[in-house]
Amino acid sequence: MTNKIYMDNAATTPLKREVLDAMMPYLTEEYGNASSIYATGRDAKRALDEARQTVADALGAKVNEIYFTSCGSEADNWAIQGVAYANKNRGRHIISSQIEHHAVLHTLQYLEKQGFEVTYLPVDEYGLVRPDDLKDAIRPDTILITIMYANNEIGTIEPIDELAQIAREHKIPFHTDAVQAVGHMPINVKELGVDLLSLSAHKLYGPKGVGALYIKNGVKLDNFLHGGAQERGRRAGTENVAGIVGLAKAIELATADIDENMARLTALRDKLISGMQAKIPYCRLNGHPAKRLCNNVNFSFEFIEGESLLLMLDMKGVAASSGSACTSGSLDPSHVLLAIGLKHEIAHGSLRLSIGDFTTEEDIDYVLEVLGPIVQRLRDMSPLYEEVERGVKHV
Amino acid sequence: MTNKIYMDNAATTPLKREVLDAMMPYLTEEYGNASSIYATGRDAKRALDEARQTVADALGAKVNEIYFTSCGSEADNWAIQGVAYANKNRGRHIISSQIEHHAVLHTLQYLEKQGFEVTYLPVDEYGLVRPDDLKDAIRPDTILITIMYANNEIGTIEPIDELAQIAREHKIPFHTDAVQAVGHMPINVKELGVDLLSLSAHKLYGPKGVGALYIKNGVKLDNFLHGGAQERGRRAGTENVAGIVGLAKAIELATADIDENMARLTALRDKLISGMQAKIPYCRLNGHPAKRLCNNVNFSFEFIEGESLLLMLDMKGVAASSGSACTSGSLDPSHVLLAIGLKHEIAHGSLRLSIGDFTTEEDIDYVLEVLGPIVQRLRDMSPLYEEVERGVKHV
Repeated sequence: MTNKIYMDNAATTPLKREVLDAMMPYLTEEYGNASSIYATGRDAKRALDEARQTVADALGAKVNEIYFTSCGSEADNWAIQGVAYANKNRGRHIISSQIEHHAVLHTLQYLEKQGFEVTYLPVDEYGLVRPDDLKDAIRPDTILITIMYANNEIGTIEPIDELAQIAREHKIPFHTDAVQAVGHMPINVKELGVDLLSLSAHKLYGPKGVGALYIKNGVKLDNFLHGGAQERGRRAGTENVAGIVGLAKAIELATADIDENMARLTALRDKLISGMQAKIPYCRLNGHPAKRLCNNVNFSFEFIEGESLLLMLDMKGVAASSGSACTSGSLDPSHVLLAIGLKHEIAHGSLRLSIGDFTTEEDIDYVLEVLGPIVQRLRDMSPLYEEVERGVKHV
Repeated sequence: MTNKIYMDNAATTPLKREVLDAMMPYLTEEYGNASSIYATGRDAKRALDEARQTVADALGAKVNEIYFTSCGSEADNWAIQGVAYANKNRGRHIISSQIEHHAVLHTLQYLEKQGFEVTYLPVDEYGLVRPDDLKDAIRPDTILITIMYANNEIGTIEPIDELAQIAREHKIPFHTDAVQAVGHMPINVKELGVDLLSLSAHKLYGPKGVGALYIKNGVKLDNFLHGGAQERGRRAGTENVAGIVGLAKAIELATADIDENMARLTALRDKLISGMQAKIPYCRLNGHPAKRLCNNVNFSFEFIEGESLLLMLDMKGVAASSGSACTSGSLDPSHVLLAIGLKHEIAHGSLRLSIGDFTTEEDIDYVLEVLGPIVQRLRDMSPLYEEVERGVKHV
């Protein structure tokens, strides 16, 4: 059974019809191994070459700077471990932020066990990294800076161009996890000045199981997945041709109408935000009000527990999330919400609604209609809320 | 354009119709993120759970011993690097063979640069590892043994049960790269006694971009792909639900009719082998005549160059390979053929014909019909062959 209103596009998106259509030949008659030299293989190779050009064009990269991976997490792991191991004789210090995705954070924690040292920059109340903090953290032995483009939970867009500029002045490779950003805002890697950028297909109406890493020519990094000579000898494994073709089609579609799509989504997003603020007391918008992904809404509600909220929304047909899908099942409050200064009990009562290309005005109206009563019903069960209402306790 | 006769099933296989049918719901309406808690996500989770049970059943494993990866190469990288890093304080010696796939060999070479030491066991003229050689190579600091199940170029099946028994006696974890074997012969991980086993979907009529690693309960290994809590916290990255469902369906189909399928393929294989031996002089079957994958034929031809042979076969509509697709483009002779004692010039003139479930008796007849004249035509252009024919030179 699928939910009638899907508001978890930051977790994953449905395949667009055109994407599936582009993939189908490679799931049927065009099944060749792209590394083979006969006709069937050459067709697959040609599809790969075209897909690589499309992805490069969408990012303003050169075609030989795009490497396909199995997901955004692999791209993050490769970028970070690859640069760390390739430069470990120069230094072992890495700079990141406290609000990165776990694909970055857990990779860094693993490197810490291998003798690397990591500085996790704090963020302000909106989740923004301060460029001055980055300047202060740089040391002679800093070999990598990795800061996400846009946060997956609260949607805050970091000042990547400014941060990358600082890295460049110090000749330190700069990686950005742009998994949530690509396809949702215009990105040009050359204008940004980043050295490495990770992306994932299934966040932009492409298939699950495929991503890409932009590696600027000249950046020194070790291979991560060792083996055959695929991806010009830098990423082994028989190429997932259908998936890669799907990624390319998805990014092509996203880039083609990005300005009007952003305008449409931003209007829907802001309608949802202002509607919630108008209807629901004791709630707080997390993340920056303006420097924010066009598809992200994230609120904290006092006196309620996030999981109950999600279950009641699900019963009303609404698919939503408390934050990252990758950590669901964990009882810990979000490290992102703690980093922007929320208290534990409030961080637990958070809701992420991420809209998408298939979201309609009616979907927004429906969510605004059902959300208020659900929040109220949950609060009516809270002893703490009762005290506040009776004036015994102040918030 | 696709080749009319496909004899490169060891490189990759077409998707079976039933596999694609099983995948389609997860490429369309069932697009949920399997880590989400609402209905759409729970459906995806259920599909993953069922797929994991199917793969476990096919291998005789427990359901919590199966971990999905993005390909066989990733499974190999994870098994080898994971065990190496998790046990590096106990020792840094690893044992493997000279004829492994590059996903194993290049991973080991990378570990050598990180301070590990690797013994590459030689093989006999058929490509078989000798159990006594393994016994002799074991040291107190040996922390991993990794020997492939069946060779991807010459099809030789290694005595894995015997080798794993030796590892067990010494309490050393044993990994086998079974990418070429799974789906092509009955495999039960418990009877075999292996601790880790890698497999790939696209070698058994499943999709590209998905594989699995069997990890026996209790085996100590580090994570390889760090990030979210997917795969019970051991392999990050949003699950490729469609791909995983496809892998499960493919392995289920392969297991269901494995005995009759092996019998059919073995008969076709032996017809091809004896036909080639009868029609073509100066050729040599590589690999063991009996301890051999049911789908593998590998010959060396004196006085000719493998790539020319492949191009002429392609012109006749036959897709074949000189060995591993993963290394095509390389001018080096195959490390496998050198390891079984072939001279450089003969190793260059090799041909792998790998048949499959869609291969017919007519396909075999056609290849036997066209191959002889092609070999003869290429030899007629060889000065060396001319001398042999004139009796000036002896072979």
